[in-house]
Amino acid sequence: MKPNGIITLTTDFGENDGYVGTMKGVIFSINPHAQIVDISHQIPAQKIDIAAFILFNSYKYFPPGTIHVIVVDPGVGSQRKILAVQAGGHIFIAPDNQLLKYIFFEHETTEVIEVLNKKYFLDIISATFHGRDIFAPVAAHLSLGTPIKNLGKITTDFRPGEINTPQISKDKIEGEIIFSDHFGNCISNISQQAINGKSFTLECGTTFIDQLSNFYADAKPGGALALIGSSGYLEIAVRDGNAQKEFDIKIHDPVILNIKLQP
Amino acid sequence: MKPNGIITLTTDFGENDGYVGTMKGVIFSINPHAQIVDISHQIPAQKIDIAAFILFNSYKYFPPGTIHVIVVDPGVGSQRKILAVQAGGHIFIAPDNQLLKYIFFEHETTEVIEVLNKKYFLDIISATFHGRDIFAPVAAHLSLGTPIKNLGKITTDFRPGEINTPQISKDKIEGEIIFSDHFGNCISNISQQAINGKSFTLECGTTFIDQLSNFYADAKPGGALALIGSSGYLEIAVRDGNAQKEFDIKIHDPVILNIKLQP
Amino acid sequence: MKPNGIITLTTDFGENDGYVGTMKGVIFSINPHAQIVDISHQIPAQKIDIAAFILFNSYKYFPPGTIHVIVVDPGVGSQRKILAVQAGGHIFIAPDNQLLKYIFFEHETTEVIEVLNKKYFLDIISATFHGRDIFAPVAAHLSLGTPIKNLGKITTDFRPGEINTPQISKDKIEGEIIFSDHFGNCISNISQQAINGKSFTLECGTTFIDQLSNFYADAKPGGALALIGSSGYLEIAVRDGNAQKEFDIKIHDPVILNIKLQP
Repeated sequence: MKPNGIITLTTDFGENDGYVGTMKGVIFSINPHAQIVDISHQIPAQKIDIAAFILFNSYKYFPPGTIHVIVVDPGVGSQRKILAVQAGGHIFIAPDNQLLKYIFFEHETTEVIEVLNKKYFLDIISATFHGRDIFAPVAAHLSLGTPIKNLGKITTDFRPGEINTPQISKDKIEGEIIFSDHFGNCISNISQQAINGKSFTLECGTTFIDQLSNFYADAKPGGALALIGSSGYLEIAVRDGNAQKEFDIKIHDPVILNIKLQP
Repeated sequence: MKPNGIITLTTDFGENDGYVGTMKGVIFSINPHAQIVDISHQIPAQKIDIAAFILFNSYKYFPPGTIHVIVVDPGVGSQRKILAVQAGGHIFIAPDNQLLKYIFFEHETTEVIEVLNKKYFLDIISATFHGRDIFAPVAAHLSLGTPIKNLGKITTDFRPGEINTPQISKDKIEGEIIFSDHFGNCISNISQQAINGKSFTLECGTTFIDQLSNFYADAKPGGALALIGSSGYLEIAVRDGNAQKEFDIKIHDPVILNIKLQP
Repeated sequence: MKPNGIITLTTDFGENDGYVGTMKGVIFSINPHAQIVDISHQIPAQKIDIAAFILFNSYKYFPPGTIHVIVVDPGVGSQRKILAVQAGGHIFIAPDNQLLKYIFFEHETTEVIEVLNKKYFLDIISATFHGRDIFAPVAAHLSLGTPIKNLGKITTDFRPGEINTPQISKDKIEGEIIFSDHFGNCISNISQQAINGKSFTLECGTTFIDQLSNFYADAKPGGALALIGSSGYLEIAVRDGNAQKEFDIKIHDPVILNIKLQP
């Protein structure tokens, strides 16, 4: 894979403390021509599922040759591995804690490297900020053309993670909420393909919605609706409102579609 | 207009969910040399007035040839138009919902294009994320030199929006609050030109201020003051404090200047 | 010093109002090839100590020739000076209000310029937004190679600020909390060098910790620990938790290490 110079960053570091800026300083010290793009630094502290889903929705819109750095890393400093993975024309660098579960789900025969080669790290490695000391310099070196295999050794001993897929029967699809965004839109793991054009009524906790809408403006202001969101999954929204707050929807809440049989 | 490669982004997408990073991925996929600048992604959800004012204050500090993308778009997916407007040496791309009202107010003879040409969109257009699927790729193509007229057709059927201007009489100027910023400074629609050097006492709700200050440090810590802010409009501030919270000032609250007649 | 084209920004402007984007527009208008990096715009309004510490931890990871702009400036518009300082291969531009105290502490013989030359400012200088009107254009000109001495005159009449260093005796080190980050990790002014390998018990308010850990995962989930953080200073943390909130730790709270004497 030929790097295109773009490095994306996804962390739970927030934007208050200068941690992200510091990582960028490290990257530019190694590759002054890197193109750094923030995906999110507002991952709730140590929420791996959320980071994994955001990365999954975003990475594919970057050009091939992009390097994606994901640092949500409660095990920093311990013996957890750091993985570098080439998949789908992109490279991903992340702690071995299931952050890449959607990437492994999409790309089955992915080669995984355990990052070990200190030649590509900063000289002094702190116990608490591997984003600065390992992830940033490794990404910068990759963006300059360092082959991924130089970073360490191939490993099969890692934790790919698992994706909960919905249960589909003739008259029912049972999934769950996997993400709620800044607007309060609640995204399920039920894909457009799983629905496959069928009509349904939706149940999620005390919320009932009796049809699939096409876009937010299909509902009246304040009205609830279900639609296929931009990630290709069924989501629950409130027009000009916040479904997550209004219906108190939480991650892993069940979402049940009762299929309307054709007469 | 010759594009300079800069694309600014103003949205209500927040910085949590990766939506903005995804837009940048789309832009870099089309124009790897674009210079992308965030103006704000913290527009309160669907607050068009606030986005319009922030854009108005910021755009003019960018060099000519900049492309400004504004996505605060409660009507996304419905039949609302998307507009591309060339004005003052800049290009603006926004939904047709009055986001550009200050631009139209400043530049009267502006040509407006309805964006229709799918050649410049992503192949798959979601119902909910036109920022990614339409606005970002259109801006990227413009930044590469695609003429604005190629995007669609000239239209006169759009909603330019209106600006509330203050009422000015011999002894009184009656305006309103149009914006409060992160520091709690409350900005009115009364311009420096409208005041034109006159002395006044200011009323805004229960707040009275009896003179114009030159800068924040003119007041004692905790003291209220009125001054001409960086946008050229009269604002109400509290030194080392938050005027919006202390005086519970809201958008559209009346601001009355009682002109002191010269003796 | 030869500039490398990188300009970092540290402000208390927040990311809501477009103020930072506006500064970037000014910079790109002067130097279209500048590489602008945000360190933080979430400095709590006018909290100079916090900005000073964040800058101190971040700047050294940028390559030599970087220009650092710091705007936390309650005195904006008054007669406070603006300083440009070259130190350690970097240039710093800040109001004269002790924002650079750690820089002066690290680099004793630093030459300090009072920024006065309006040739490098915008044509119109507002009373309230010198970030846009002075700091941004000055930084852009420096990044193009303007010598720092051209900005004004050498001054010795400025406020370098002071660093509280811990009191160290044979059986005790007495320091204080100087920063708490987004994760709630509370950083003291006691450096790794001051501890120098000694064993200790730590007291901070009602919190007692009886040993130094190596990394967060040394503690059980929810457990408190003391460790050397990424800045090289002793910090108090809670694994998978927020020490600042759980122990209600505040800036300037005393931190006492009772040294365990070797038997």
